[in-house]
Amino acid sequence: MNMIDVIEQKRDGGELSREQIEFFINGYTAGEIPDYQAAALLMAIYINGMNRRETVDLTMAMARSGDQLEYHDLASFVVDKHSSGGVGDKTTLVVQPLVASLGVPVGKMSGRGLGSSGGTLDKMECIDGWKFQLSLDECLDQLGDIGLVLAGQSVSLAPADGLLYALRDVTGTVSNKSLIAASIMSKKIAGGADGIVLDVKTGSGAFMKTEEDARELAQIMVEIGEDAGREVVALITDMNQPLGYAVGNALEVKEAIDTLRGGGPPDFRQHCLTIAGYMLLMAGKAETIAEAERLAAAALDDGRALEKFREMVAAQGGNVAQIDNPDLLPQAKVVEDIVMPRDGYIAGMDTSELGWASVNLGGGRRVKSDKIDPAVGFILTIKIGDRVSAGQVIGKIHADDIQKLEEARKQILEAVQVSDTPVEALPHLYGVIS
Amino acid sequence: MNMIDVIEQKRDGGELSREQIEFFINGYTAGEIPDYQAAALLMAIYINGMNRRETVDLTMAMARSGDQLEYHDLASFVVDKHSSGGVGDKTTLVVQPLVASLGVPVGKMSGRGLGSSGGTLDKMECIDGWKFQLSLDECLDQLGDIGLVLAGQSVSLAPADGLLYALRDVTGTVSNKSLIAASIMSKKIAGGADGIVLDVKTGSGAFMKTEEDARELAQIMVEIGEDAGREVVALITDMNQPLGYAVGNALEVKEAIDTLRGGGPPDFRQHCLTIAGYMLLMAGKAETIAEAERLAAAALDDGRALEKFREMVAAQGGNVAQIDNPDLLPQAKVVEDIVMPRDGYIAGMDTSELGWASVNLGGGRRVKSDKIDPAVGFILTIKIGDRVSAGQVIGKIHADDIQKLEEARKQILEAVQVSDTPVEALPHLYGVIS
Repeated sequence: MNMIDVIEQKRDGGELSREQIEFFINGYTAGEIPDYQAAALLMAIYINGMNRRETVDLTMAMARSGDQLEYHDLASFVVDKHSSGGVGDKTTLVVQPLVASLGVPVGKMSGRGLGSSGGTLDKMECIDGWKFQLSLDECLDQLGDIGLVLAGQSVSLAPADGLLYALRDVTGTVSNKSLIAASIMSKKIAGGADGIVLDVKTGSGAFMKTEEDARELAQIMVEIGEDAGREVVALITDMNQPLGYAVGNALEVKEAIDTLRGGGPPDFRQHCLTIAGYMLLMAGKAETIAEAERLAAAALDDGRALEKFREMVAAQGGNVAQIDNPDLLPQAKVVEDIVMPRDGYIAGMDTSELGWASVNLGGGRRVKSDKIDPAVGFILTIKIGDRVSAGQVIGKIHADDIQKLEEARKQILEAVQVSDTPVEALPHLYGVIS
Repeated sequence: MNMIDVIEQKRDGGELSREQIEFFINGYTAGEIPDYQAAALLMAIYINGMNRRETVDLTMAMARSGDQLEYHDLASFVVDKHSSGGVGDKTTLVVQPLVASLGVPVGKMSGRGLGSSGGTLDKMECIDGWKFQLSLDECLDQLGDIGLVLAGQSVSLAPADGLLYALRDVTGTVSNKSLIAASIMSKKIAGGADGIVLDVKTGSGAFMKTEEDARELAQIMVEIGEDAGREVVALITDMNQPLGYAVGNALEVKEAIDTLRGGGPPDFRQHCLTIAGYMLLMAGKAETIAEAERLAAAALDDGRALEKFREMVAAQGGNVAQIDNPDLLPQAKVVEDIVMPRDGYIAGMDTSELGWASVNLGGGRRVKSDKIDPAVGFILTIKIGDRVSAGQVIGKIHADDIQKLEEARKQILEAVQVSDTPVEALPHLYGVIS
């Protein structure tokens, strides 16, 4: 087989055979196909698209490009979740211990944040001593011991995805739904998941700005699951405003701990119950989603979920005193209220801009090499549809210095649209695709 | 400016600005833009196309990517020609001395052959001692002295074209007319041509298989010329059969010398007169194409063209004894007749296959690193429309050994289609676009 023939086939709008896709993925992973040929093919795929069969074949070839986890001796049905990313999304910190506390083992590999979306590892690293660089054997051991592990992405799982993602990032070929779907699903499948709950966000803070785009991406991933023999449920959820109140690493960990204690912002608690509910339903722990959510709510309210989180932190070397007393988490130097400048109704938010406000405070990365300040960020307690009045405190900014704080204040207030007439609240869940 | 923005613009079907095109060409030539980004952009250009303005801007950016020749102190109007390549195309060897002998200085840079098309340098290297590696200064000196120089492509002229061509070759992005046109025209413009005669071939031995494709490519190049302030005439000529009789390096040099002596195959002589005619017309040496062709015919018939060729060979270190007595050119070990196996009319030829027959004999290259045997090839004296009879000698094969000769005989006879009913001869010229 010849890579130029493969490129020309897709360039001319043709369909790639499974053999051609495997030839490309195996050759690229082995370093035998150069970046420039892969870039030409990715652009041809981007413009001319891939059908369902090609997308599934691409996903499976990527999933098989490295190690594949198998831990059916620990769980008869392995569940995992994935979020397409957003502002204030600390869901993993709550959902994984919650589900594990109900007897469903979860081994999750997470990533770092880039741009306006945060990353789970960055949040967890606020906890002193906590480490995520675990070998696959260490992961399996911990999963057997306590039923919960939260690790960094292993380069040995779906290495083709890591290589291709880096190339797509610099060749203008990121935002193609088949390529996005294959990237997400290949890692989950290599990670050994039998069932996957996908949280596909839509709105001003999401990668998919429109509900239509989110549904299309979700549909492709559900189809990949069907054809690959995995159970997949995709939830289309709102990202037109931050999830919960907290944006910024230590602030989000605190909010997650509040939620694990049975408190937390109502929208975030409900989001966690929905995601956990579908995971529990898949794992056969309940008959209906309502029953599954009730089980999950109980585990938050009676402390089981928090205890499981504490066990995981301890097992991975973290300082549990910071879980018991979140005031021990990193604290910012300057904290000031955000005050509402006028009366009205919250009509909308530029959620991506809110994410950038946190990045500008030092809480996120513009480029991969940026260092993060774990303490900074902000709390914003308003939601779209809320009635507000001039002088009302709507949140707090946590900053390293007063200048950055003032810049963030300006950016946050500019990102919030206020209307004189009442505005309807937004739904949390737009739909379920399975 | 950011290369990813440039890629995304073309990926999404947008138009690239002149600044974006210059940013790409300058950055790629300087090695600042990596191959994988250039490959992604080339594929987006291939699929989504470029309009006239973009194609002209690309051509000019490539033309300006290195040195630009200027020799208006030698000629008030500099003319050049380009052929899109074909089988048996030894036109440059005749046309350039012919035009130079009529007082129009021509400095031409030529390439090597690859695949079924031969290259001018490979043919000229049959002459002992002849060298083409001349500096730009040496070229200009020789042009001033004798009005004719035939050199290899200088890497300092339009270096972006050399780099991009090599990348297109390995990324499935060769056969896009805007990219082809920009490649050809950028070199001619950097070479200082005020007027360019383009020989765009169409047919079974040409890169452009259909007349429609050839006309479209010709039209783009004429438009580039208009917008770049150069005079361009494109001739759409036939390549449904080899040009002349000889295919193979030394055999073609002999045929070119015959033609420079006033002989040669009628179709090849006429082709040379047409190309030379348009060059002379452009240079103001005649008022009509008929008058220009008459001037050219006289220079072939009275020996002026041959004398100019001889001067060029001498100036570039070649053995002129081989020009005076072409039997001194390399001779193949085995020579045998090709005999017609049946009666009929020559109905068609797979001209590309005829080119490959010469490559298989050792007369051309499959890959760039292949060595060429200058002596091998074949003479095929039939033309489409000819009536032939069984047992008629229609040519000769010149080979290195008898096994290759027999394989070539089979391949040549299979490439010639014979009909029982009369077939019309093909025109030499399908049209002139200017």
